[in-house]
Amino acid sequence: MPHTAVTIDDAFWAPRLRTNRADTLAHLYRELHRVGSIDAFRPNWQWPAEATQRGVWGGTPTMFWDSDVGKWLEAASYSLATHPDLQLDALLDQVIAIIGQAQHADGYLNTWFTSVDPQNRWKNLRDWHELYCAGHLMEAGVAHWEATGKRSLLDIVARYADHIADRFGTETEKLQGYCGHPEIELALVKLARATGEERYLELSRYFVEQRGQQPHFFDDEARARGDNPDDFWAKTYEYHQAHRPVREQDQVVGHAVRAMYLYCAMADLAGAYSDRSLLATCQRLWQHLTTTRMYVTAGIGTSKHNEGFTGDYDLPNESAYAETCAAIGLVFWAQRMLQLDCDRRYADIMELALYNSVLSSVTLDGQRFFYDNPLASNGQHHRQPWFACPCCPPNLARLFASLGQYIYAQSSNELVVHLYIAGAARTEVAGVPVVLHQQTNYPWDGTVTLRVESEGPATFGLRLRIPGWCSGAQVRVNGTAIDLEQSLEHGYVRIEREWQAGDTVVLDLPMPIETRHAHPDVVADVGQAALQRGPLIYCLEQADHDVPLHRIVLDDPAGLTAQAEADVLGGVTVLTGQAVALDTANWQGVLYRAEPPALQPCAIRAIPYFAWDNREAGPMRVWMPYRPQLGAPVDDLEAKRA
Amino acid sequence: MPHTAVTIDDAFWAPRLRTNRADTLAHLYRELHRVGSIDAFRPNWQWPAEATQRGVWGGTPTMFWDSDVGKWLEAASYSLATHPDLQLDALLDQVIAIIGQAQHADGYLNTWFTSVDPQNRWKNLRDWHELYCAGHLMEAGVAHWEATGKRSLLDIVARYADHIADRFGTETEKLQGYCGHPEIELALVKLARATGEERYLELSRYFVEQRGQQPHFFDDEARARGDNPDDFWAKTYEYHQAHRPVREQDQVVGHAVRAMYLYCAMADLAGAYSDRSLLATCQRLWQHLTTTRMYVTAGIGTSKHNEGFTGDYDLPNESAYAETCAAIGLVFWAQRMLQLDCDRRYADIMELALYNSVLSSVTLDGQRFFYDNPLASNGQHHRQPWFACPCCPPNLARLFASLGQYIYAQSSNELVVHLYIAGAARTEVAGVPVVLHQQTNYPWDGTVTLRVESEGPATFGLRLRIPGWCSGAQVRVNGTAIDLEQSLEHGYVRIEREWQAGDTVVLDLPMPIETRHAHPDVVADVGQAALQRGPLIYCLEQADHDVPLHRIVLDDPAGLTAQAEADVLGGVTVLTGQAVALDTANWQGVLYRAEPPALQPCAIRAIPYFAWDNREAGPMRVWMPYRPQLGAPVDDLEAKRA
Repeated sequence: MPHTAVTIDDAFWAPRLRTNRADTLAHLYRELHRVGSIDAFRPNWQWPAEATQRGVWGGTPTMFWDSDVGKWLEAASYSLATHPDLQLDALLDQVIAIIGQAQHADGYLNTWFTSVDPQNRWKNLRDWHELYCAGHLMEAGVAHWEATGKRSLLDIVARYADHIADRFGTETEKLQGYCGHPEIELALVKLARATGEERYLELSRYFVEQRGQQPHFFDDEARARGDNPDDFWAKTYEYHQAHRPVREQDQVVGHAVRAMYLYCAMADLAGAYSDRSLLATCQRLWQHLTTTRMYVTAGIGTSKHNEGFTGDYDLPNESAYAETCAAIGLVFWAQRMLQLDCDRRYADIMELALYNSVLSSVTLDGQRFFYDNPLASNGQHHRQPWFACPCCPPNLARLFASLGQYIYAQSSNELVVHLYIAGAARTEVAGVPVVLHQQTNYPWDGTVTLRVESEGPATFGLRLRIPGWCSGAQVRVNGTAIDLEQSLEHGYVRIEREWQAGDTVVLDLPMPIETRHAHPDVVADVGQAALQRGPLIYCLEQADHDVPLHRIVLDDPAGLTAQAEADVLGGVTVLTGQAVALDTANWQGVLYRAEPPALQPCAIRAIPYFAWDNREAGPMRVWMPYRPQLGAPVDDLEAKRA
Repeated sequence: MPHTAVTIDDAFWAPRLRTNRADTLAHLYRELHRVGSIDAFRPNWQWPAEATQRGVWGGTPTMFWDSDVGKWLEAASYSLATHPDLQLDALLDQVIAIIGQAQHADGYLNTWFTSVDPQNRWKNLRDWHELYCAGHLMEAGVAHWEATGKRSLLDIVARYADHIADRFGTETEKLQGYCGHPEIELALVKLARATGEERYLELSRYFVEQRGQQPHFFDDEARARGDNPDDFWAKTYEYHQAHRPVREQDQVVGHAVRAMYLYCAMADLAGAYSDRSLLATCQRLWQHLTTTRMYVTAGIGTSKHNEGFTGDYDLPNESAYAETCAAIGLVFWAQRMLQLDCDRRYADIMELALYNSVLSSVTLDGQRFFYDNPLASNGQHHRQPWFACPCCPPNLARLFASLGQYIYAQSSNELVVHLYIAGAARTEVAGVPVVLHQQTNYPWDGTVTLRVESEGPATFGLRLRIPGWCSGAQVRVNGTAIDLEQSLEHGYVRIEREWQAGDTVVLDLPMPIETRHAHPDVVADVGQAALQRGPLIYCLEQADHDVPLHRIVLDDPAGLTAQAEADVLGGVTVLTGQAVALDTANWQGVLYRAEPPALQPCAIRAIPYFAWDNREAGPMRVWMPYRPQLGAPVDDLEAKRA
């Protein structure tokens, strides 16, 4: 369901989305303007010297400037669509006019390869993000047209897409290439939907199917440039998920954002072409990602080195990369998987990512951002207003500005609620205009009231997600309890009936404080636990504790209570209660000894992970040593010893 | 007591020392010859291009080649002193003759600054190790003279020392400098003792006292070279322990080997000049090192970045640098502290280093070496035959070749036993020639029998160390138990009597298997324990376990037994028994869940840390999660909750 059909009117998201529209979009524009990304589209604009200085890999992040502008335009368009703003509308027209000046007669459009490096156009698809930039402009063109009905940017990007279709394909006179950074593939699907032009879908399919084929395009183009393919810095095309054809991939590898964008396109194409084998590939990759290579916050991508995946269960906390864009890409992919397969395993992760690894990336004022989202810190990691490679801030802005689209879904005779966020969805189902009102204090409270408002009775199925983290959920329709065991399909309760205006469904999703434990092969988390309540992962910050965090050991979570604190961190529910701490008494002048440190009771206070680093700097930890784990009874141990 | 007065005749060290003499010395000579370190002393020798390529810091490890040759000569001389060998004797003469050719008429002697960079002589004391190389040649000259009575090398280095004394000092016409890498300071003390020339001691004192004075010499010489002192890569003169005058230093900082060598010289000078304030400084630094910045193996120096110290309690295991040379330097310093202050706190650490962080650095065949000695490994860390900066292998060779000197000490009326190693010490005490025979299977067994053999009765005190790791020690003289509580002085039992030939003292030092626990602020070891028996720290290697090491949790060490295994790793005592392991059953397809992993009994087998990485490659860990720690009763917790 498009975000334009949805209103969000709650205490949690609505203020953040307001900040996104009012402050983040303005901040992004200021920064893009300051560094030159927008002016770079003007003819004869002079690039600052530092913007063209290449790194050891032969490129510079300023090669991707067009994509940042594209993402900002997309975010601003989403905002315009729900919150008309004449000034913003005019600003977009102005920027689009500048972009239009940069388009070549043949449709080509890229600032770097127009004014800095024109001789190298389409010469290094592996590294230089040329099609990636095109993709982000296309997503912007579609969003702008949807928001305003204006074809200005849509026509520009469609002409560019036509140019690309002339240059790329399996025909011998064309380049058999594809982009090192997937993005254009999913953008072309959007362009095809917006324009009704099947050829853009075909071009997307070509890019996806060509990926990883032999002889390998990246090898060939490297040789054509006079480079040795073996000199590629990352040493493996797993980095781009181009190590083998996509249908043969069964492990999530390489750069995490690239992986997510590729899988999005694969899911889109699986749907568009009813391609069961491509869907099966997506399901296999989803399973691999979420059962071996994902942080408990839904952060993904362990390593800074490749901005991506390493090995199964390799999930160190303090050095976790967990890039913001990767978490956002995971939300994109989850939504697409949900459209193909309404299973809560996708929605659970979408929710987990939204409330934790995505939300952690921005301050409450919407103007400072994390690029990487570690699960522990010594106090040195802080959000920044901008980055040399500023991919994350505008990515977050476009996700927030279109958040409405992730909450509901519908088919001709069904309405689905994936997320619990107060507000309403206006749509037509089974031929009847329907407004579904949602009232809740989620994520702080698990009571959700849905009220149907329709012009006359309407017979349709209402599908409601029962989150995987929740036990003991109850659902009542006009006060009558539903038998959940009977009606649960892949984690959704489905209520099919003739709905009358005023019918209400009340979900009660209990939110006890629980510990989360990692698979025993997650070396970083052995003997440790994280705290979770509802969809939120919690963390401890030094700011709330006198005892150094590293000495604190979690005890039974039954000793903790949740309490809403309106004045803390913009209003959050904190978890407080008793834990234990290693005692330093009797350790004066002793570094090692035969007796373990004594444990003393210690009060703790956990805050939602997303809210960390908003007070004085200091250590933070999600995973803490967990006393009941190692103190728990050992199966058969006593018997076997005896 | 000099190592020439001591014989070592045991099952543990004697084979290793034989290997050191027979194989390691030959291996070192081959390597030094192969790379060119020896030939570099020849006139007109051509340096290979790669030997003169400088790194980003402006130098190259080949600048320190002279020191490697010096350490090898020193080691070979120690070997000659106890095990005459005409061929080795001749080889040393030959190498010394080559060295002699390189000495300038004014006494100057350095290969790099003679043939590669003569214009920069004494121009960068901060980085370029010129005086450090001189120091190692001096130590070699003293050792060679002591071993052979030949003055060939001693005269060379004495002339060099005179040259240095002419160039360095507080007088205005001299350089007010000192070496970035302490070494010459302790070497000059040896040279003074060997030659009886007080001026070398004075020069050592000058170097030590000048260190860290303002205006800072490293600043001045940098400016004189046209460099900005702020560009120094390590950013702080803590790196060289030159951040302030040595008497004002109260924290061990910077490069660990440099620190140890400096503290050795400070201890030497404290003794030579009866300087109580310098002794107090050494004691303060010892206390700081051993209570905040030392691994449980006595490895020191946390970080690869500065090859040295970071912060208090910052002792990560897998990334531990714990350089071999630093552990050797700690043995040197401990011995010097013992000479000033016969307290077992020095001997305990000396022993701990010898049996663990030093011994781990070499294979049983004496030809492969660790430069850094981590306390955990993922299976990628292995000993190497040589290094671009080969400081560690010859350092180990000289320590092993002179090991006898660390076992005993004596004064006019006292004999001291610091270490328990079977063999004998021949000396004269209270005017009577005495042989003290030591019989023991240490470190595998704690029973030690000492037998006095003397020409007639002799009245002297016998001081025996009761190791700090030992409780319940018993000492019997000719079968009669000594009251330890009464006679213990700083951890040594002192037995003063008229000794008759054939008198025996039997020590019984119980060696139960115990856990070691770290101070609660050692973040890396929270909730974990290491295993120790006698002076040996143990580790687990994957080679002995089917369950991945990271899933194993130590249980009560009472469940473990020690057994000698003659065929394992050259004959070691292993610890076997029951622990527990995190169970992966019921975790298929699950990455996080609300219930912690179950624990299952699991057999473990621990080997001495020094013996790791001698079988197939695989993970290794010293510190393991410890179940009784977190399962232990919590003081007052229940009461406070109630």
